[in-house]
Amino acid sequence: MDYKKFIEEQIAHIKQTVGEAKAINALSGGVDSSLVTVLGHRALDNQLRTVFVDNALMREGEPERVVKVFAEMGIDVELVDAREEFLSALAGLTDPEEKRQAITDTFYSNVFARLVKESGATFLLHGTILTDIEETVAGIKRQHNILAQLGIDTEAAYGYSIIEPLKTLRKDDVREVAKTLGLPAELAQRIPFPGPALATRIVGEVTAEKLETVRTATAIVEEELADSGAFQYFAVLLTDRATGIRNNKREFGQIIVIRCIESTDARTATVTPLPWEKLNRISDRITQIPGVNRCLYDLTPKPPATIEYI
Amino acid sequence: MDYKKFIEEQIAHIKQTVGEAKAINALSGGVDSSLVTVLGHRALDNQLRTVFVDNALMREGEPERVVKVFAEMGIDVELVDAREEFLSALAGLTDPEEKRQAITDTFYSNVFARLVKESGATFLLHGTILTDIEETVAGIKRQHNILAQLGIDTEAAYGYSIIEPLKTLRKDDVREVAKTLGLPAELAQRIPFPGPALATRIVGEVTAEKLETVRTATAIVEEELADSGAFQYFAVLLTDRATGIRNNKREFGQIIVIRCIESTDARTATVTPLPWEKLNRISDRITQIPGVNRCLYDLTPKPPATIEYI
Repeated sequence: MDYKKFIEEQIAHIKQTVGEAKAINALSGGVDSSLVTVLGHRALDNQLRTVFVDNALMREGEPERVVKVFAEMGIDVELVDAREEFLSALAGLTDPEEKRQAITDTFYSNVFARLVKESGATFLLHGTILTDIEETVAGIKRQHNILAQLGIDTEAAYGYSIIEPLKTLRKDDVREVAKTLGLPAELAQRIPFPGPALATRIVGEVTAEKLETVRTATAIVEEELADSGAFQYFAVLLTDRATGIRNNKREFGQIIVIRCIESTDARTATVTPLPWEKLNRISDRITQIPGVNRCLYDLTPKPPATIEYI
Repeated sequence: MDYKKFIEEQIAHIKQTVGEAKAINALSGGVDSSLVTVLGHRALDNQLRTVFVDNALMREGEPERVVKVFAEMGIDVELVDAREEFLSALAGLTDPEEKRQAITDTFYSNVFARLVKESGATFLLHGTILTDIEETVAGIKRQHNILAQLGIDTEAAYGYSIIEPLKTLRKDDVREVAKTLGLPAELAQRIPFPGPALATRIVGEVTAEKLETVRTATAIVEEELADSGAFQYFAVLLTDRATGIRNNKREFGQIIVIRCIESTDARTATVTPLPWEKLNRISDRITQIPGVNRCLYDLTPKPPATIEYI
């Protein structure tokens, strides 16, 4: 694949489609939305407004870090605090589909709809990639970002048209295009992070307390596995609890699962055979998080498991 | 420690204590109760009645296998089917303490109380070991078999006195005494299995369906790890579910945790660094159990985790 040609074509396509209108896009900090942000600004410059919505489901220090990285590239990203709105929408929900739906609805129908209206944008740039479309069509997963593929007329429903410059690419191509376009390695090589963010890393109800726990666990895992070379690695907080001993007393504690996988395109994945020294060190640090007394390693390839838990 | 002397002393002590009365003991097939059964029959011969209660929580083929092994040693073990009684008592319970309590109550107050009454026994031989007592006193775990240590007057409450010949031993000594006494390796070297059996291997409510799932998983783990040399290894079924893909369709499946540990006395434990080939093979077999699509490996030493989950 000719990545330079792809970039030129997409920039031309975005320019031609948007014309003199205004466009908006939401940046999550993942490689897909980061690439769309850079492509969009190359094509549209100040006609494109880029927002980063803090939905309370972000990793440690993530909103600030993403805004800073783009500022260094000369791209202005607007940070929008919507934490309370998302936490309220998630309260009491345990079903994965309902949780994803609540996040999608809060984002598209409330927070983002408001931002689009304010901005006067009539085009939305979106980082949908081919794998998202394939898995949604196959019924494996409900992606948060494939409205058009699901037959939803965004223009009628939300007042804007969607442009998806990456919809023919798989993850490995996305990384190559990002590299070709000169994105910093921090973004181009960033491990995949799902749109519904840490909410997908909590099995069962999402609360501010559980988010704090899984956020701390995520920071530990990302720090310990940064040099692993793995495709993706993360921590999941379960609802189940197990007995443990702390200060010689019985404790009914929380369980964190570590997942670390090898993949080229996220369609299939195998488990990374990490060194035991590393696994023991991660377990030791994870079980120092208040309330957590078990650390498990996921042994399941995809299929039969998915990469994520919900 | 002089194991031969220990055996002679205990046999003499049991003889002297029971005199001409009748005794009864419940055999679970674990090394503790197996050793007590052999010591008891050496001391009391036909004055001791040994029962094996099938509480529906046993491993695959276990009741029949245990009865057969003892028959080969010339010891008659009576198999009592109490499966429905235990399953009814466990229905709807999710709290670990309530589950243990329901099993203890069903056993001591109902099933075993009935058997003791029928038998006319006034002495109960019990396989309590030192670690059980220490952990119960420390409040780490409620053991099912330490009534006397908890200050319960068994004579007044249940009509019998308890004799605990192993209460000064830790697990490694129990194995040595069993070997010295000539117990078959299948019993002497048998990996520890808790009294409440597979109920402790299910986090959350215990049902006949879940027992079937964890029983199959247990058989796989025991077969695969029989030659591991580990102190203990088992499978746990969680209540949490996770997404997976089966035949290209999304599936919300069950999660099995594998635990395999090194220990000498069960007071502390470290995780066995199993070969990845073995872990992958176990994961592959476990995720072929209907409804199961995740297999996790527990990385947590004791402390901060306990060996068991509930």
